[in-house]
Amino acid sequence: MKLAVDAMGGDNAPSEIVKGALEAAKNYSCEIILVGDENKITEILNAEEDWKNLSITVKHAAEIIEMGEHPADAVRNKKDSSIVVATKMVKDGEADAVLSAGSTGAAVAAAQLILKRIHGIGRPAIATPIPTPNGVTLMLDSGANVDSKPEHLLQVGIMGSLYAEHVLGKKNPRVGLLNIGEEETKGNEQVKEAYQLFKSSSTINFIGNAEGRDIPKGNFDVVACDGFVGNVVLKFGEGLATTIFELIKEAIDNGGISAKVGALLLTPTLRSLAKRLDVSENGGAPLLGVDGCCIISHGSSDAKTICSAIKIAAEYVNSDVLGHIKNALEKEYSGS
Amino acid sequence: MKLAVDAMGGDNAPSEIVKGALEAAKNYSCEIILVGDENKITEILNAEEDWKNLSITVKHAAEIIEMGEHPADAVRNKKDSSIVVATKMVKDGEADAVLSAGSTGAAVAAAQLILKRIHGIGRPAIATPIPTPNGVTLMLDSGANVDSKPEHLLQVGIMGSLYAEHVLGKKNPRVGLLNIGEEETKGNEQVKEAYQLFKSSSTINFIGNAEGRDIPKGNFDVVACDGFVGNVVLKFGEGLATTIFELIKEAIDNGGISAKVGALLLTPTLRSLAKRLDVSENGGAPLLGVDGCCIISHGSSDAKTICSAIKIAAEYVNSDVLGHIKNALEKEYSGS
Repeated sequence: MKLAVDAMGGDNAPSEIVKGALEAAKNYSCEIILVGDENKITEILNAEEDWKNLSITVKHAAEIIEMGEHPADAVRNKKDSSIVVATKMVKDGEADAVLSAGSTGAAVAAAQLILKRIHGIGRPAIATPIPTPNGVTLMLDSGANVDSKPEHLLQVGIMGSLYAEHVLGKKNPRVGLLNIGEEETKGNEQVKEAYQLFKSSSTINFIGNAEGRDIPKGNFDVVACDGFVGNVVLKFGEGLATTIFELIKEAIDNGGISAKVGALLLTPTLRSLAKRLDVSENGGAPLLGVDGCCIISHGSSDAKTICSAIKIAAEYVNSDVLGHIKNALEKEYSGS
Repeated sequence: MKLAVDAMGGDNAPSEIVKGALEAAKNYSCEIILVGDENKITEILNAEEDWKNLSITVKHAAEIIEMGEHPADAVRNKKDSSIVVATKMVKDGEADAVLSAGSTGAAVAAAQLILKRIHGIGRPAIATPIPTPNGVTLMLDSGANVDSKPEHLLQVGIMGSLYAEHVLGKKNPRVGLLNIGEEETKGNEQVKEAYQLFKSSSTINFIGNAEGRDIPKGNFDVVACDGFVGNVVLKFGEGLATTIFELIKEAIDNGGISAKVGALLLTPTLRSLAKRLDVSENGGAPLLGVDGCCIISHGSSDAKTICSAIKIAAEYVNSDVLGHIKNALEKEYSGS
């Protein structure tokens, strides 16, 4: 498995990206191509004495797409940017997957413009695993598209179901449609129409509408939604989890001596829990619906996150989920 | 202040509703009219020896609107239901406000059909206070309407700002528009158009787009959104907060002896924090935009929640926020 990593994307690039790649190269059997400023990347690599014995190479790309730039314009104009060069490697068969922690919009635009959408898919979707007490709920779309039509929601549900089955190892995944109530008459026009499409699809195991609370509770394996709602929910969840743990810390600081002693005794327990709930710990989210493997990491990714995202990219490629999605769409639309 | 309370609405009705009313009648200077099954209500009241000395009366209503019923149809057909009778009392000047923990849809439908919308308001909105480290963020609409147009979002922002100022006591409230990014070019068509309306309104202190994470962090006083998104976010928050505290409990149960001792010492601290974050502890959410005071409580409300919701109803009425909203809309639409 060959993976093109955008070494220049993300708040901690290139340093943490390169370190994460080094870590992954030591632990997983994959070839990593770091794409970006050759001098900077090599300088970081050189801190690791024997990096040349690892399956890591560097491919120079002179430009960087910044967070504020208009994604599609930037992808069209900056042909030598790290994300464009890395994505082209997948298109040209020089890599099996591309990974970026840079501008999500740019990564999505590059994938759409260069890899193109899978035949039958109207909009690609970012599939984010949300931690639950018993594993994860895959929520998608979490921000690739913000004006989904009902048929796009169904496509999103089908892709999520196949990803949950073939990559996350869930049998007959329970698929839900994000809505404001359980009843099929609830919701806006978009989800009411989508409900009927989900109900008549033979490709997925649709078990009904999911409400917001069902996502963290893990009552569904896959929850399909428009990218506007998904993105707001994802960021709200990040903010709420952070706030709760800050408030716990504050309450302890303002508590008496027994609260402080209690906290000291509980620290290891709470720390591992906080990690488990931290969405950025889940490494990478696949962009489903484009004709190639594209994994998007959180902008704040550190080396550990990148390493886990590389593992996810390898699982994506090895599971051939792309082939499964293509087959399923053919089946769905041929009505067989 | 006279308050009509729907004694039959909610998971714990009528018992907890009546107990909450008794508690409020002892603590706040308001007259409470309990609306619903007279026999059942009186039986619960009689458990309190001297309830006849309190400012509580009972008004009989024979019917109940159940959770599963179609809201508008039920309001039209069940003219003797507790929520319809209670709402009519406000319309007829027999009460200053109505409070219900029953079907939210029915309460909204009753308010729209009986009290009518304020002139200039296209859609009413439920304004829910979300706890933050420094107080609350008022998020609205959290579920009254699911297909808002840009002008509805602006109306929602204006009403939220006035409620935050006159009831929550915030000076020059910081108003945000819920979106997937800070830049004004971000989002779907609905919010991009709304952004321009917010920017040119002289009635509110619009400080820009709010992302999901800004709500729990308290970076805005008021966050305006469509009721679909708001409802999903609200329920997601409830689910996530519950899940986090369940996971903390589970981690402690599975932890060693030091984790258990630590937990014991920390219990009072964590318990008060959990209460502070519990949205249902915030009592009631006003339905803004209808021509009368209507407060909606969580379906799972207990006596304490109802008591705090009654306090909120009193504050709403005493602040004359309704008059302020009418004036502001006149100003906004006259362009002065």
